Amino acid sequence: MTYCVGLKIDKGLVFMSDTRTNAGIDSISTFKKMRVWEEPGERVIVLMSAGNLATTQAVVSLLDERTKAVADRNPTLLETPSMYQTARLVGNTVKEVIASSAPVGQKADSYFNASFILGGQIKGSEPRLFMIYPEGNFIECSDDTPFFQIGETKYGKPIIVRAYDRQMSLEETVKLLLVSFDSTLKSNLSVGLPLDLLFYENGTYKVGLKKRIGLDDPYYRTISEGWSSALKAAFQSLPDFTG
Amino acid sequence: MTYCVGLKIDKGLVFMSDTRTNAGIDSISTFKKMRVWEEPGERVIVLMSAGNLATTQAVVSLLDERTKAVADRNPTLLETPSMYQTARLVGNTVKEVIASSAPVGQKADSYFNASFILGGQIKGSEPRLFMIYPEGNFIECSDDTPFFQIGETKYGKPIIVRAYDRQMSLEETVKLLLVSFDSTLKSNLSVGLPLDLLFYENGTYKVGLKKRIGLDDPYYRTISEGWSSALKAAFQSLPDFTG
Repeated sequence: MTYCVGLKIDKGLVFMSDTRTNAGIDSISTFKKMRVWEEPGERVIVLMSAGNLATTQAVVSLLDERTKAVADRNPTLLETPSMYQTARLVGNTVKEVIASSAPVGQKADSYFNASFILGGQIKGSEPRLFMIYPEGNFIECSDDTPFFQIGETKYGKPIIVRAYDRQMSLEETVKLLLVSFDSTLKSNLSVGLPLDLLFYENGTYKVGLKKRIGLDDPYYRTISEGWSSALKAAFQSLPDFTG
Repeated sequence: MTYCVGLKIDKGLVFMSDTRTNAGIDSISTFKKMRVWEEPGERVIVLMSAGNLATTQAVVSLLDERTKAVADRNPTLLETPSMYQTARLVGNTVKEVIASSAPVGQKADSYFNASFILGGQIKGSEPRLFMIYPEGNFIECSDDTPFFQIGETKYGKPIIVRAYDRQMSLEETVKLLLVSFDSTLKSNLSVGLPLDLLFYENGTYKVGLKKRIGLDDPYYRTISEGWSSALKAAFQSLPDFTG
């Protein structure tokens, strides 16, 4: 499994992903699920993936290779004129990869499924955040739903729904995501540390902060332990049932 | 969908279930998912169900009918010598109902699936709590895992895991379950009010409290509104990320 969240606030975009992949409970590995393409001063593009690892790796490799193969007739991730065209490019690459696996291999197409969160900003347009489905189509986040989750989304959703505020600082948003991830990590063994964190501040056209957060990260420990106590205290603060 | 929780504390057993059933998002009804068989002074048996409504109703009807058909050679819910034998009886009835639907109807057995939480106490033995699978086999809760959830279990699990304490009072346990249900209600439309609440105090052999909780229930409103604020305050109490 996987857990990734991309979240939009007034100040920018914040991304977090776990790194655990598993094929059965007895085959666990660590793989990065967050990729960044950056042309400082011109564009930052972040892609997070969930689903079949062969599919997500193939999508990323194709996208990456094409940024280097100058002769390719399609615009690449570093040349697309807008985030919308970038989402289309990623969506088409997903379709291409799934189509190339499906007919000759086994029939259960769902096995090759993968979904993606794509966000970033290209000079001349606003920062945008998309979710791309295995079918290659995609949706964009809105003010009503300013975040996307992929993978194991349920455990960590209630706190985002309740505590999100578009005027949050980047620092508060990281806290929110860590609380959401901590709830998920505690509930599903197939989501695991370390976490990858990236934040992008609007209009900067460069990665703001990129950090890997492991079990020994002091801030993660503060949040993980603090949240348990804070949650218990919150619970205690409510009146008991009186019949 | 459905959400039901059965929880064991030192003082007794607490049960809560929602009442929404749906066949597609456009076909929603209210059905009771909690049944009680009681012989005051001798036994209390509570059964909650999730899954295919035809299956769960058939199981309950058969169990119920047999308590009235004196000639039946099997012991009934009102005659089983122990909670373990009661769980076996329910499990066998589940198998019987699923087997009778499966071969003549469509092939997708999963469509007829249902799972159950069974709890109660029979004079002469301890109170016990079981979860019964669609296959008819079952597990019992333990000190390490003192509760069972069926249906839409994920949204409401983190708070139970964190705030449960076996020494809780029945009143605190009701609060805990309401918080867990409120998180689920807010996240999944197919779980809906009103809720059914029952608590059983060990050694009393009668239903302690049985109550239906609707949107206009003042305690439910206090918890639902209070929890949002308490959660936000808990979140605010943690330090922001500092890089």
